[in-house]
Amino acid sequence: MKPMPTTIAHEIMERLHLLAQHTEQDGMMTRTYLTAAHRGAAGQIAAWMRDAGMTVRRDAVGNVIGQYEGTEEGRAMLMTGSHFDTVRNGGIYDGLLGIVLPISCVATWHRAGRRFPFPIEIVAFSEEEGVRFKAPMLGSRAIAGTFQKTVLDHSDASGITMREAMQMADLDPDKIAAAAAVKNSIAAFIEVHIEQGPVLLNEDLPLGIVTAISGATRYMLELEGLAGHAGTVPMTMRHDAAMAAAEFALFVEQRCSNVDGLVGTIGQWSVPNGATNVIPGRCTLSLDIRAGENAVRLAAAQDIEAELERICTKRGVRSTLTKTYDTSSASCAEWLQEGWRAALALNNCSPRLLPSGAGHDAMAIAAIAPIAMLFVRCGNGGISHNPAETMAAEDASIAADVFMDFVEHFDDLAMKASGNI
Amino acid sequence: MKPMPTTIAHEIMERLHLLAQHTEQDGMMTRTYLTAAHRGAAGQIAAWMRDAGMTVRRDAVGNVIGQYEGTEEGRAMLMTGSHFDTVRNGGIYDGLLGIVLPISCVATWHRAGRRFPFPIEIVAFSEEEGVRFKAPMLGSRAIAGTFQKTVLDHSDASGITMREAMQMADLDPDKIAAAAAVKNSIAAFIEVHIEQGPVLLNEDLPLGIVTAISGATRYMLELEGLAGHAGTVPMTMRHDAAMAAAEFALFVEQRCSNVDGLVGTIGQWSVPNGATNVIPGRCTLSLDIRAGENAVRLAAAQDIEAELERICTKRGVRSTLTKTYDTSSASCAEWLQEGWRAALALNNCSPRLLPSGAGHDAMAIAAIAPIAMLFVRCGNGGISHNPAETMAAEDASIAADVFMDFVEHFDDLAMKASGNI
Repeated sequence: MKPMPTTIAHEIMERLHLLAQHTEQDGMMTRTYLTAAHRGAAGQIAAWMRDAGMTVRRDAVGNVIGQYEGTEEGRAMLMTGSHFDTVRNGGIYDGLLGIVLPISCVATWHRAGRRFPFPIEIVAFSEEEGVRFKAPMLGSRAIAGTFQKTVLDHSDASGITMREAMQMADLDPDKIAAAAAVKNSIAAFIEVHIEQGPVLLNEDLPLGIVTAISGATRYMLELEGLAGHAGTVPMTMRHDAAMAAAEFALFVEQRCSNVDGLVGTIGQWSVPNGATNVIPGRCTLSLDIRAGENAVRLAAAQDIEAELERICTKRGVRSTLTKTYDTSSASCAEWLQEGWRAALALNNCSPRLLPSGAGHDAMAIAAIAPIAMLFVRCGNGGISHNPAETMAAEDASIAADVFMDFVEHFDDLAMKASGNI
Repeated sequence: MKPMPTTIAHEIMERLHLLAQHTEQDGMMTRTYLTAAHRGAAGQIAAWMRDAGMTVRRDAVGNVIGQYEGTEEGRAMLMTGSHFDTVRNGGIYDGLLGIVLPISCVATWHRAGRRFPFPIEIVAFSEEEGVRFKAPMLGSRAIAGTFQKTVLDHSDASGITMREAMQMADLDPDKIAAAAAVKNSIAAFIEVHIEQGPVLLNEDLPLGIVTAISGATRYMLELEGLAGHAGTVPMTMRHDAAMAAAEFALFVEQRCSNVDGLVGTIGQWSVPNGATNVIPGRCTLSLDIRAGENAVRLAAAQDIEAELERICTKRGVRSTLTKTYDTSSASCAEWLQEGWRAALALNNCSPRLLPSGAGHDAMAIAAIAPIAMLFVRCGNGGISHNPAETMAAEDASIAADVFMDFVEHFDDLAMKASGNI
């Protein structure tokens, strides 16, 4: 039985819809870094933060940071947040939920005069998707101190560099280094985010505890066989590049199935200049392998590379495999996962553990602080980065309750954890 | 041991290279219907026919027809020939060999004063590849009386209709029907052609006897699954359209392997808007199935259609399979194959039988006369429709000897065959 959504859930859902009005394209949710729509959303978020009793500032990359002061001096903060940019024609919950939900929770505490010994900072990260300048996680990397200055020279589709876009938005690129968080100032970073997948929906669970943000290894694969006439070359004499690709793809699928948290995807397939009556001489593929555990991902990658060689040798097809991206997984801290588990128990929710196959701001913050993530169920088959993305008010309601319980117990949790260290 | 090429072989090879100078694109062999290059080649062919003692005419679709008169009145002719158009950036032997070789043979007879009871007609078909107006076999269809008038309205890339192009070349579209051969005037049609495949090369044989020109069934296949995030959708919850395509492709390959003369090709593959981090929601494929025997092709098509349904049901992927082309095979007459066999034996060649997976003018002529084809080995892995197409002078030499022996014995062969009927 789902409970009725609470007042806070209504506020969260309403605000998500209000933010959706800040878009670059009518009828679509598109809000890329430093556009007018993006600046409009930043202003709206800052206003809600202020209403919730927070002190608001904007840093050099445009992150909007609200601080809810603690009662004790010099305590490390609990940081939370997510991003307010979107992909093109995306959904209205991705990222935004992790900003709007904590603001409504803080507002509730503020109205009740409740403060914690530690400060809470909500960061509305200005950029995570990497759409406009082909560089993701600008906001969280600035805070983690891992912002790469070279991306300032990236240009958008109309030739404006990131540096120029920042200057037009009254941001000072020279102060990005200063946006990095002070060492040891963050006790933990927690991020609430929609799952962007079908797992919770499929198991009829509102919430999930993220164990790790998957690492990913990506490749581009070029297969080169021998083109030939579709009618005149007997099957046994062919070196069909696309058939090698097909066999390879099925191996990837089989190898990644039945291993928990491991996924392998061939998203791009093409036979350049393919024609009905020509045996494919070339085929290009992309390959993306992810897993919550590095060892699982690397073992799969190794097996897949070996199988590619076997298939190509057997078929007389040459392969060129280029690794284009390789990043380790970011583990969620055990003690923070324990905190989610306790908060879920208080709300009669099963503690479903799952890795996050998608990247999130928490991944960048993991460089400087322990992280944890709470996933909220997606509707509509789990679809995301798409206008069909949905989330239920009932789930926002439970998520807010769990978030508040987590924060209420955070100090005990942190103390217990530091005692254990 | 290969014999040294004979004088006639040198002439054949030289003339193939001379004809290659009639091209639309410098450094490439491109000669499409009724271009200046095409008209130049027609003139050159007509001149060689006249030198060989033939009476030459041009019919309403631009076929160049040379007649070498017989000694007896009212005898049905032996027709031979092939096409003098080419694909874009094709080879210089495809089609042309079947024109140039018989001309050199007739020239030899002419010089020796040798005539046959029956007339010989060499037809240089003006169009077979279907490049300029997307309609193939115009020349042979006109002679077979199967020319479709609707193609006269087809336009080339620059908007010129076929009708206009014919008028510019002094051809009268209204006389195409009159170009059809008189009923029973053709005793047999034989075509010499390069194999355009690797079978003879692979078995170290210069010549092959064609058993049939393969029928073909072609489809376009649209697969529709469910797009999703490459990181967040577990393998077991996917409906990956490209994986369904991969499984389907491997079935096609397996089903067509080890059945003599059967081939299946997936020449076009694409995942529209494919991205590295997106599970393919759609995939489009072409499928081409060919076999020398209709029953073999149709049984394979049926099995492949059934397997497609099984795969799609299993994977939760929808398929739309559209048959775009379906044509029966054209059998080569047994008695003419017997004639090749005898001629090959006279020249110490093994009688390798094989179907032609590619279409040829003989396919159209099969509507009005018994047909047969002699294949000549391709070099270079059997590649054709490509500048890398090659053929050895030694093989032209044997082919000419076999052709001449075939014609020398044709009257006996035809009489024996008609006695058998």
